[in-house]
Amino acid sequence: MKGNEIDQLISLLARVPGLGPRSAKRATLHLIKKRDSQLVPLIRAMQDVLTNVKTCNICGNLDTKDPCSICSDLKRDQSSVCIVQDIADLWALERSGTFKGHYHVLGGLLSAIDGIGPEELNLDKLLNKVKEGKVLEVIIALPVTVEGQTTCHYIADCLKEYGIKVYTLAQGVPVGGELDYLDDGTIQAAIKAKKAL
Amino acid sequence: MKGNEIDQLISLLARVPGLGPRSAKRATLHLIKKRDSQLVPLIRAMQDVLTNVKTCNICGNLDTKDPCSICSDLKRDQSSVCIVQDIADLWALERSGTFKGHYHVLGGLLSAIDGIGPEELNLDKLLNKVKEGKVLEVIIALPVTVEGQTTCHYIADCLKEYGIKVYTLAQGVPVGGELDYLDDGTIQAAIKAKKAL
Repeated sequence: MKGNEIDQLISLLARVPGLGPRSAKRATLHLIKKRDSQLVPLIRAMQDVLTNVKTCNICGNLDTKDPCSICSDLKRDQSSVCIVQDIADLWALERSGTFKGHYHVLGGLLSAIDGIGPEELNLDKLLNKVKEGKVLEVIIALPVTVEGQTTCHYIADCLKEYGIKVYTLAQGVPVGGELDYLDDGTIQAAIKAKKAL
Repeated sequence: MKGNEIDQLISLLARVPGLGPRSAKRATLHLIKKRDSQLVPLIRAMQDVLTNVKTCNICGNLDTKDPCSICSDLKRDQSSVCIVQDIADLWALERSGTFKGHYHVLGGLLSAIDGIGPEELNLDKLLNKVKEGKVLEVIIALPVTVEGQTTCHYIADCLKEYGIKVYTLAQGVPVGGELDYLDDGTIQAAIKAKKAL
């Protein structure tokens, strides 16, 4: 009934995070209907990404050049490195526009359940930079989850011997956060870290 | 920070139904990470669909050939035509495997709000087939919504003068449906159309 081509596209779209088998079918029909306005540009955009986007050899960011535009930006402070789990986190930090150092993308978190040990983390390059004395401060910006905090403490331990400053992000009430809707852990953290006015 | 290529892909993916701006970002990162196992096959599948899939000139179905494999299947009964709103509905009916006639894809429903009048519906080809005496029975399988039922009655009116049989799908309790969870309209329809055992 449906051509194999359509089934193939549905099954590949169904593997994209955010889409399931039903929505992949809907997306496929939509793309076929909007052939010229959506399918063709989407193919072109994917090919552009495929040919032009590379992983930065230094920090693990994605960019059209390697080293990426952050690592090759001389105005940024390369002695300050912010460790993030994923590129999406790097983008979020860049969006905020407050951090002007370099990044280091881990690519994952320590997780006993998923079998991710210290070797699987992309830490060696960072430790080498630290050993060479290029890095004076590290900000560990990992998620406040069990895995995130385990990884955070592991990295802090690794960095201890080099005598550099190691920070983590402040915990507290988010902007726009109403106390009534916040979890107990966040409120506890906000009270512990209370600040004088 | 992100290359233009990545932003472009995110914004195009965000227009796919089922994905929004956030999930498009996640999908983009996922596709870049799984370059060889997902991005490359996806591009290829999209190109295959683009070059090979066409709309059937007779019924409006999508297939690699025109007329589609349903319209060109001599074993199917071309005197019985099932009218559906969309190709997804045609697929659903084919999946059930009970209908062995031809289809006619409307491509929309009458809707005063969306400004879709009778001219926007793909009805002429069907009416021509009916006028030529090729069609003896029509099953209108449109959704049980206000627009669906309006369109259903409009089509039934158009077909009245040709003296062919016009059916609609039975309404009642769905298989696996528990009465407690069904809406009143469905229960009313099921009682009205009660059947002797």
